[in-house]
Amino acid sequence: MNYKELYNNILKKKSFLCVGLDTDSTLIPEFLKNEEYPLFEFNKSIIDATVAFTVAYKPNVAFYEAEGHKGWMQLEMTVSYIRSKDPSVFIIADAKRGDIGNTAERYAAAFFKNMDCDAVTLAPYMGKDSVAPFLKFNNRWAIVLALTSNPSATDFETATLIDDSSPESKAYLKKNGNHFSEKPLFKMVIEKAMTWGTKDNTMFVVGATRPEKLAQIREYCPDHFFLVPGVGVQGGTIEDVVKYGMNNTCGLLVNISRDIIYAWKKEESRFSERDYVKAAAAAAQEVALEMQKFLL
Amino acid sequence: MNYKELYNNILKKKSFLCVGLDTDSTLIPEFLKNEEYPLFEFNKSIIDATVAFTVAYKPNVAFYEAEGHKGWMQLEMTVSYIRSKDPSVFIIADAKRGDIGNTAERYAAAFFKNMDCDAVTLAPYMGKDSVAPFLKFNNRWAIVLALTSNPSATDFETATLIDDSSPESKAYLKKNGNHFSEKPLFKMVIEKAMTWGTKDNTMFVVGATRPEKLAQIREYCPDHFFLVPGVGVQGGTIEDVVKYGMNNTCGLLVNISRDIIYAWKKEESRFSERDYVKAAAAAAQEVALEMQKFLL
Repeated sequence: MNYKELYNNILKKKSFLCVGLDTDSTLIPEFLKNEEYPLFEFNKSIIDATVAFTVAYKPNVAFYEAEGHKGWMQLEMTVSYIRSKDPSVFIIADAKRGDIGNTAERYAAAFFKNMDCDAVTLAPYMGKDSVAPFLKFNNRWAIVLALTSNPSATDFETATLIDDSSPESKAYLKKNGNHFSEKPLFKMVIEKAMTWGTKDNTMFVVGATRPEKLAQIREYCPDHFFLVPGVGVQGGTIEDVVKYGMNNTCGLLVNISRDIIYAWKKEESRFSERDYVKAAAAAAQEVALEMQKFLL
Repeated sequence: MNYKELYNNILKKKSFLCVGLDTDSTLIPEFLKNEEYPLFEFNKSIIDATVAFTVAYKPNVAFYEAEGHKGWMQLEMTVSYIRSKDPSVFIIADAKRGDIGNTAERYAAAFFKNMDCDAVTLAPYMGKDSVAPFLKFNNRWAIVLALTSNPSATDFETATLIDDSSPESKAYLKKNGNHFSEKPLFKMVIEKAMTWGTKDNTMFVVGATRPEKLAQIREYCPDHFFLVPGVGVQGGTIEDVVKYGMNNTCGLLVNISRDIIYAWKKEESRFSERDYVKAAAAAAQEVALEMQKFLL
């Protein structure tokens, strides 16, 4: 899928919701646990219930791997099912892979050839070698971790780097006292990755839990789509994400996982476990209605 | 497996070789490609041929994922086979996973519960949240990417950080001119990860392609094991790795993949494709004999 198609789908569905399929074999309804393919059965019903309200699905690969090859099979079944249900939905393998060269090529094959995913999330630690192989595919996307929503994002992502790639080199800066140019690691990741690909094949993960940073990032990265986790359980709000992150082609995919797929478990839910599908549909619709306001 | 057992196995086998099972469905011998489980059949024969000379195997997960659920099944079969062949061999899932919280827990379940791997390689970008869940398991290991052997390791891993975690805070440094404390990102990763776990459950990936850095890292990280890629095809040598990286309990697992498992493909090889097993055995033995010199 290309940038324009994605934006058109957002306008058509009046939603920039991405439903995270963090399908945990221990959290699905009891009566599904004895199915032959419990993760898939759960996903299938969740997809049926939410596809009208969402432009993207994001299966979280860990939850399938944890069930071994039968889990991986259910991941494949899920991707196929989404594709058959609505070919215009954007499918993100949330795999956070980060390896290089021929290994990265095999990961790309896993998600772009063996499965028909549109995008895969990638960890940038090893540099360009770990992203470039994914950019060779037409109309497929690399979604690079930039500033994530978890507490320990401050361990490295926000650590301050001396920018010695600029003309004001480190040596110069040292010689000339304290006027050194500096930036956080996540900014260097975004700046470099913007040169590896384009807005048509690269997105960034930017968490909703630090809205002030989202605004800063949007300044130096005006055109790229951001995949935004951290709304809901982790405390971010759609309003803030829109205020600080939206651009003139939306530029946002806001991911919500547990608050939708396990909506019936919420304390205030009016739905029972038996009605988990209705609960998910209602939760997704509620989010989509809020998003619609910002797309009119 | 614990530290002491690993060291004892190194002494017993007089080898610190790790054979990388980067088993590529397009590179295995033609006559294996029509087997029902070609990756597994290849691995099985390679394991039989090399197990006397190696203390560790490192299946590279990408190559199995690329074949879908049937590939994942062959990864499981491979890990089981290694375990049954020699329970004392250290098994590393080279997965370079890097996710957080309950997702990281599911990855840990995939490799430590569903499969019986001793260790998994991890990307540290998202910080402690992406490593800590793997450290909860007794006698299992997190192998954290530090300084890798690929060219673009210079994109971020070697970028210079201002150390504002020290008492000389960034504010102080700015105020007081150019005496700022600085370090590369990979050093900050090692220093922080050393506080998350211990030498008994944490290793670091340190490439053989930058021996001078290996020596520096060994200074501030004297006791941990290093998993060292980059010997052979990428240009690193065992002699340099030993010279700069060995400690008094060896402290090294040197990974070699293609030069062993595809040894028959080398231009100077005296073996034909039909004799790929003999070629792998000879290559592994040659490496082990070189390693033996450093362990006497």
